Parts: sequence; structure tokens; C-alpha cells
Amino acid sequence: MSHKVSVFRKEHFNAAHRLHNPAWTEEKNILIFGKCNNPNYHGHNYDLIVKVVGEPDKQTGYLIDLKMLSDLIKENVLEKFDHKNLNLDVPEFKDLNPSAENIAIIIYNILRDKIDKSLELQIRLYETERNFVEYPAN
Amino acid sequence: MSHKVSVFRKEHFNAAHRLHNPAWTEEKNILIFGKCNNPNYHGHNYDLIVKVVGEPDKQTGYLIDLKMLSDLIKENVLEKFDHKNLNLDVPEFKDLNPSAENIAIIIYNILRDKIDKSLELQIRLYETERNFVEYPAN
Amino acid sequence: MSHKVSVFRKEHFNAAHRLHNPAWTEEKNILIFGKCNNPNYHGHNYDLIVKVVGEPDKQTGYLIDLKMLSDLIKENVLEKFDHKNLNLDVPEFKDLNPSAENIAIIIYNILRDKIDKSLELQIRLYETERNFVEYPAN
Amino acid sequence: MSHKVSVFRKEHFNAAHRLHNPAWTEEKNILIFGKCNNPNYHGHNYDLIVKVVGEPDKQTGYLIDLKMLSDLIKENVLEKFDHKNLNLDVPEFKDLNPSAENIAIIIYNILRDKIDKSLELQIRLYETERNFVEYPAN
Amino acid sequence: MSHKVSVFRKEHFNAAHRLHNPAWTEEKNILIFGKCNNPNYHGHNYDLIVKVVGEPDKQTGYLIDLKMLSDLIKENVLEKFDHKNLNLDVPEFKDLNPSAENIAIIIYNILRDKIDKSLELQIRLYETERNFVEYPAN
Amino acid sequence: MSHKVSVFRKEHFNAAHRLHNPAWTEEKNILIFGKCNNPNYHGHNYDLIVKVVGEPDKQTGYLIDLKMLSDLIKENVLEKFDHKNLNLDVPEFKDLNPSAENIAIIIYNILRDKIDKSLELQIRLYETERNFVEYPAN
Repeated sequence: MSHKVSVFRKEHFNAAHRLHNPAWTEEKNILIFGKCNNPNYHGHNYDLIVKVVGEPDKQTGYLIDLKMLSDLIKENVLEKFDHKNLNLDVPEFKDLNPSAENIAIIIYNILRDKIDKSLELQIRLYETERNFVEYPAN
Repeated sequence: MSHKVSVFRKEHFNAAHRLHNPAWTEEKNILIFGKCNNPNYHGHNYDLIVKVVGEPDKQTGYLIDLKMLSDLIKENVLEKFDHKNLNLDVPEFKDLNPSAENIAIIIYNILRDKIDKSLELQIRLYETERNFVEYPAN
Repeated sequence: MSHKVSVFRKEHFNAAHRLHNPAWTEEKNILIFGKCNNPNYHGHNYDLIVKVVGEPDKQTGYLIDLKMLSDLIKENVLEKFDHKNLNLDVPEFKDLNPSAENIAIIIYNILRDKIDKSLELQIRLYETERNFVEYPAN
Repeated sequence: MSHKVSVFRKEHFNAAHRLHNPAWTEEKNILIFGKCNNPNYHGHNYDLIVKVVGEPDKQTGYLIDLKMLSDLIKENVLEKFDHKNLNLDVPEFKDLNPSAENIAIIIYNILRDKIDKSLELQIRLYETERNFVEYPAN
Repeated sequence: MSHKVSVFRKEHFNAAHRLHNPAWTEEKNILIFGKCNNPNYHGHNYDLIVKVVGEPDKQTGYLIDLKMLSDLIKENVLEKFDHKNLNLDVPEFKDLNPSAENIAIIIYNILRDKIDKSLELQIRLYETERNFVEYPAN
Repeated sequence: MSHKVSVFRKEHFNAAHRLHNPAWTEEKNILIFGKCNNPNYHGHNYDLIVKVVGEPDKQTGYLIDLKMLSDLIKENVLEKFDHKNLNLDVPEFKDLNPSAENIAIIIYNILRDKIDKSLELQIRLYETERNFVEYPAN
């Protein structure tokens, strides 16, 4: 049994995207991505839950100050993604399809560099209330 | 006191949009609409609640069959709006800003023609969990 | 403008039911009620919101003690409906189809007798998160 | 039928409070307010929904800019109430019991002075998911 | 650390059930299962979350097409369970008590046969908002 | 792969608290804990999810009777925490800061003694919808 604690912070952003593979024909894109391939884009209210795992500090009782974690997410993720077109406005998706899976991996990579290496990190991203992903899997 | 019943059906759609007034300068559009003016669009998961008011039928105990109401909304609203760019793909917003208020009014007008005139109708539209509108007001 | 306050208490119950009109043929029942006509019943987690409207008391700041309102709902509604088969176990539905509309009307009638006549009463009943009703309509 | 639109903005705050009537004996306070009379206070995550009703502006499609409404609520309500002890830190409750009903009336009175008189205003306040109030009633 | 992603799809169904062990006396059944032993059945809105774990495809950015996963759940689970009496209408529960634990195990077994063996599978089933189960445990 | 099942029971309590380290100066307390250091306390609606993991019983189909688990939580946790001031009314926090992390650890320790050692236990505690913790981490 672990003596570690997990803490979670929920944030959200609103963005447009389109699923598309430029190596494929238009027909194959429509076949695979359906309505999500609309060339004029569609959009979502993304809910993002960031999980951080480690040992709480004895002095504060905190694993990590959730206000600081929230600010970190706002500065590094929400500033880049909120009210944006993921395909056009976010360089990480220039050559990468903005599927929920890939968005979660990109957010993980952005935050992994900003959070102490002794702490484990996991991203849960809701594209809708019914479709969501986690990275890395546990 | 009314002896009428209200019934409600919740549906949802995902769409991209941009708030913009073409009669204004770029500066004024940014000043008024802020991040919502992003020329590349952003998007939302819209939750739509349709309320119908009237006297239930004695034979069925139904005011209106909610399966039929759901199908009516799917055929007339979701088909037009879901996974679409409201500004580019939906003719009603060609010259009308797709604010939550205007989207609710358009949905009301679409459904008002399809639902028996003896029944009252009201639209509630959630643009996000925190921002929502109703039309007509009561 | 009213100077009145509305207070709301949310409760829930789980019940089985079947929609059926004994005056109709089996074919017509299936045509009208579809899957809800299953002779072996199906069921729901019903969420019930009771709204009471009036002037708050100066001494307490309460319109009505919500603990007392909750107890009133438990004794008079939940005791009768929770973990029951509405068609077989609840006498009010012996000759009345347990549609969401009719369940709300029955709950209103039960509680109307127990709550001071100077207070207005309204029932909202969720059969599912997506299908719900209010009685009386406002 | 109204041609007006309602817009809603949801905010939240966390506060401690105690229900108590200093004109009563300790016994009567415990009898009436039960656990809510704890002299050391208890607390809630209050969810606040502000509803504004009127005619949308033709130029913007907005009834009211929800960013401005959100800022107005933050400056005038959340600054006073969030992470506070309502009985000790908020002057409006010096001689007024901070029941959900009274908190909603106080918030209404604060915001009524800040919002254009041509617009109707209503407050919904959730003390818990199961206990909530509206002022004024409609 | 895993390089795998988890994807989740939420569906729901409404069903009646009764908890009962035919090997026991009526008294023991009532003692153990309480209100859930009602011989006339009661019911629930079950929320079902299916989790699939594996490596996303480079061409699509998808681990699994959530539309396909949703259709798979609809055809193999919802068709059998929705608007049904689990005890009477679903053969898997002929000799198995339809507790939330057993329903989750049955759904797992149904879907395990339909989903690529290289992908891990987990079922979360909500009987109510407050009572839920996962299988297999992690 | 485990053949175990997890079952979850959700409860809630409302409490006041203050984050404070008596070994620090007032300035340092305000710097570290911000608004959470208010000497007059603030409060929360805490949502508590208790997870128990093990093998279901063949006779009942239950891992653990959720009514019994709910009663166990009510008697041992809610009685101590609900409508209380965590700093002043709960002895466990006399010398321990009532951060969400520490509240979850205390609840785990209380329940660990009451639940069969063959069953694993995990606590998830929501301080707000956006800030929550789990102990032990998995």
C-alpha cells in the first residue's frame, strides 16, 4: 500500500477543432472521422482534471498548493487552448490530430516540465460528459 | 393556479462559433467580444432544454410523448447545429450574431412552427455550465 | 414584483413502473408506449424537487424548516414510493397510468394537504436526467 | 407572452455560518436550528445563480455581457462573502440570521443597486445540492 | 510509467430488478436485502462507464473510435438491459442475483468478447449517484 | 488482472475549518494559506466517496452491504464531522492542519479500524467540485 496522496484540480476551456488526416483522401477522412471532420470546425467545452501524486508536506498538510497548481494550469494550458481553434491557433497540433487522446498527451507533456519530478502526474480530459480520456493510463 | 403541467426534454450539440459584428472595426469587436471574437472560432458543448406546457392527455397521462419531442428536436435542431460552425454552416446566423441569446431565439422559432399552438414553449440553452439563457423569459 | 421567497428541497426514490392503458389492445399499447410498456416493468431513480413559496419568518429567517419539509416528504411520499412497484404497490396508480406527469400530480396532491394553505407548492420530478416534469406549470 | 430573454450566471463562494436568534434561550435555539446552531460554526460551498431579464441588444445579441455580470458579482458579492464567516465578517448579518433565504435577499439587494433598473433580477442560492432558495419568487 | 491511454464512454439504461436468494427463507431474504427484496421489483437509472486501455493509433489519434464503442455497447448491452426487468427478461440473471457487482461482471464478460484482446477493459456501473461499483478492481 | 470488485459509497458533510500553522508568524500563515487562513473560519460542503475492494460474496452478490457501509460512515465519520468546526470540535485536528489531504487521511484511519482487513480501502474527498484528494494514492 502506498502512503502517498493524490490531489486533483479541475479546470475547463472552450475550443474549436477538426479531426482530419491530411495523408488521406476526403472520402476516407469522412468515413473515419464522420461529423468530426467538418472543414468549418466544431467545438467543445473541455473539462480538464490534473492529478498530482506524492507525499504531503508536514508543515502545511498540502501535497501541492491547489491555488498554485491552478495558476500553473491557467498560464501554461488555458492561455494556449481557451477560446482557440486547436488546429489553427495551437502549434502543437500543426501536424497532430487534436483527438481527445492527443490533447491529453500534449497537456501532460506541457505540465510534466513544470511540476517537480518527484511528483507523479496524470491528465483526465472530458471532451463531452460522455467521452473522456486519461493519460497515462493506470 | 394553473392546472397545466410542464414537460422538459434535454438534448445537446457541439458547435463552433465566433461573436462578431461586421459593422464595427476590428478594435471595437475585440473590445466588446474579447476572446469570443477569435477569427478562427472557438466552440462549446451546448445543452438544450425544451419546455412544453399544457394539459396532459387522459388516455396516456402524457402531455407530449417525450420520444416524439426528442425526435422533433433531433430532426429540426440537432441536424442543423450539431458538429457545425454556427457562423458558416447555419443559414440563420448568416447576418445574426450567434450569441447564446440569439441561438435560443432561433431554436424557439424553429420549434414553435412544429409544436401544436395550444402548447406553450420555452427554450433553455447552456453555453457553459455557468452561462445560460432562457427564451421567452417568464 | 413579489416579496416572496421560494425554497426547494431535493429528495429521491427508486421505483419500478409500466406504462399501460387497459382500455387499449396490446398492439396499441406497444405503439404508444413502446419499451415503457414492458409487462415485466422497468425502473428509474426518480429525483424529486419540492418548491414552497411564501414570506420568510422574521424570527428564524426561514420560510419553512427544510429538515421538517424533508421529513414530511419522507413520511408521505418516499415511504409510499421508494423501492416500490408504482403500478402494483401504490394504490393511487391502480387506475392511473404512472407517467411522470401523473406521478408529479399525485405527489402534489399528497403534499398539498400537509402544507399550510398560505404557501404555494410546486413539484418537479426527474424520471431521468433528460426527461422531467413540473406541476403545476408556471 | 414575453419577448424578453433571461440570462443566468453561476458563481460560487465558500463560507462559515451559524443560525442563531439572540432573543431566544440556548434551548430554544437548539430546538429550532438543531445542528445549524453549533456555536463554533459550520460551513458550505454556496452556489449562486444570478438571473437577469430584459431585451437583448441588436448590435451585440447580448442582454448583458456575462463577463461584466461575472465581474460585478465577484466585486460586490464574492469579495464580501468568499472564505468568510458570514456572522462575524459580513456586516449585513450583524443583526440578521444568515439563513439561505436571508443570504439570497441580501445578495439581491446588493446587486439590485448595481444593475440597470430596466432589467429584472432574481437570485437562486444553493446552500447544498438539496437545499436551495430563490428571491424574489416567481 | 505506462505510455498507454484510457478512453471512457458513458451510456445509461433503465431497468427493474429484485435482490433475492431462492435458497433462503423469506425472512432471511428480507433481513439481508431489505427494501431491495420487494417481490414486485423496484428500479434504477443505471449509468454505465466503459473504460478501454491501450496505445492510440498514429493515423487517427484514436485508441478506439468512441462512436464504434458506443454502438458496441448499445447493441450488446443496452438492447438486452434497457427498459427490462433484469430478473425476468435477461437470461444471465436467471440464477444470479442482479446486484450492482454482478451486473458489472456480466457486462464485462459480454464486452470482453467483443473488444480486441490487446486492449484492457474495465466497467464502472452507477446504481444510484451514491452507490456504484467497478470491475475488475484496480 | 484482478478478479476483485470495487464498491463505492458517496456521503457528504458540511463543516467549517481554518488552515493555520501555529509554529509560523501571522504573515507567513497569510502568505502560505491566503484566504483559507481567515481566523473566523470559512466552510465547505464536503463530498466523501469511500471505496472498498475485494471479492463479492456468492450468496448475496455483494462485496459489502452498502446500507451497512453507509451506516458505518454515518456513525464513525459524519457524526464527528457534520455541522462541526473541524479545528475546534474534532480532536483529531487539535494539532493537525485540516487540509483536504489530512482530512482524507484521518477518515481513512477511522474507517480502516472498522472494516475487515481483507478488504482494501480508499478515500476520495471533494473540498469543492474543483479541489479533491484521494488517500491512499493508486
